Amino acid sequence: MKKDRRSFLRLAGAGGALCAAGATTAFAAPGEESGFLDLFAKRQSVRRYKSDPVPDEHLRLILDAARRPPTSGNQQPWKFLVVRNKATIERLRARCLQLYEANWPQDLPAAERAARRESAAKHLAGYFSAPAFVVVLTDSQSMYPSYNHHDGPLAAGYLCLAARALGYGTVYVTDAIPEQATREVLEIPERYERVCITPLGIPDGWPEPMPKKKLEEFVVFESFA
Amino acid sequence: MKKDRRSFLRLAGAGGALCAAGATTAFAAPGEESGFLDLFAKRQSVRRYKSDPVPDEHLRLILDAARRPPTSGNQQPWKFLVVRNKATIERLRARCLQLYEANWPQDLPAAERAARRESAAKHLAGYFSAPAFVVVLTDSQSMYPSYNHHDGPLAAGYLCLAARALGYGTVYVTDAIPEQATREVLEIPERYERVCITPLGIPDGWPEPMPKKKLEEFVVFESFA
Repeated sequence: MKKDRRSFLRLAGAGGALCAAGATTAFAAPGEESGFLDLFAKRQSVRRYKSDPVPDEHLRLILDAARRPPTSGNQQPWKFLVVRNKATIERLRARCLQLYEANWPQDLPAAERAARRESAAKHLAGYFSAPAFVVVLTDSQSMYPSYNHHDGPLAAGYLCLAARALGYGTVYVTDAIPEQATREVLEIPERYERVCITPLGIPDGWPEPMPKKKLEEFVVFESFA
Repeated sequence: MKKDRRSFLRLAGAGGALCAAGATTAFAAPGEESGFLDLFAKRQSVRRYKSDPVPDEHLRLILDAARRPPTSGNQQPWKFLVVRNKATIERLRARCLQLYEANWPQDLPAAERAARRESAAKHLAGYFSAPAFVVVLTDSQSMYPSYNHHDGPLAAGYLCLAARALGYGTVYVTDAIPEQATREVLEIPERYERVCITPLGIPDGWPEPMPKKKLEEFVVFESFA
């Protein structure tokens, strides 16, 4: 085990050079390449978008990837609710702001309320600059619904990565766009569980990379003993 | 909305041709290519492996991708427990078989018990032909543990995809390798929640693709109304 760890960490230290050096043995099929792996690190959460629309052919490629992850017993329990109608997007934004405000104390002084509203509106304006949204849902009437909590995030994660491959930004949103807002405005039946919602669009600039833990902080060899 | 749907489905019908035709506009950064998207469909669940070891440099690339998905508040709550020691793998396999048997009725006739054991042993022999395993875990003491049920599957999904990019097979295992077996044999502390375990290795042949629903069965436009 100790040898394993030393060897692995030395390689981890070698950093990106391995991307070029790796992947030279034992590969059976064409199209397998470690250059692909750069995309995982390039996907970032995007919170401001350009208004360029997402064409059908790109949307199709992204959703076609999103339905490909592991799925329990091949159940494929997903629905992808695509929103590109500007009026609907605006209704969703407005409802989010209402729901934010409903959570603030009733007796908030007017100036404080106005300041909070301005801040919340600005926050939401970033997400809602996107030309499209995808709500990722799972079906509680699927074949193995108790496994939907695996299948749902898996699909959303593939969606984000496929979008990145085509140059689009996403962000895996849970609380910032309340589930209640999506249910009401998009008339999502109770039957479908919301996994997340993501804006989808060309980023208005890619954000600076987030600081990340080192790889070795995640890896344990052989046993926790 | 109706126009949206018709247009989208027409494109969906065009199938793979779009992979070549798409991705021609609005792309800012190098390395973005729709060819990448083929990998999503090529990842399959693999249940029999060749014995070739997984070298450190490939393992590193795979785990480096696995830690890159969206993560709530950048918490990165993961641990990846890598098992390559043959004796440990054998103990894990044996403990799985014991736990299977413990669930069978006490009064099972001897012949029936022997038949079940043979079938279970054969089933397990497939998974346990792999030269390596990764247990994907989340830390219940992470910064936002109530979001670990998103972050965990996201990392496991990225792991499977990155492995595929390098020519390796995986399978997102939950029940077939009982959590209890991994906890006991690998001494996983209570603090860590098991997301899944996957074998990792060169497939002993890629399986036939699973039958999948059509893309349009997953997609809803604008609203459920």
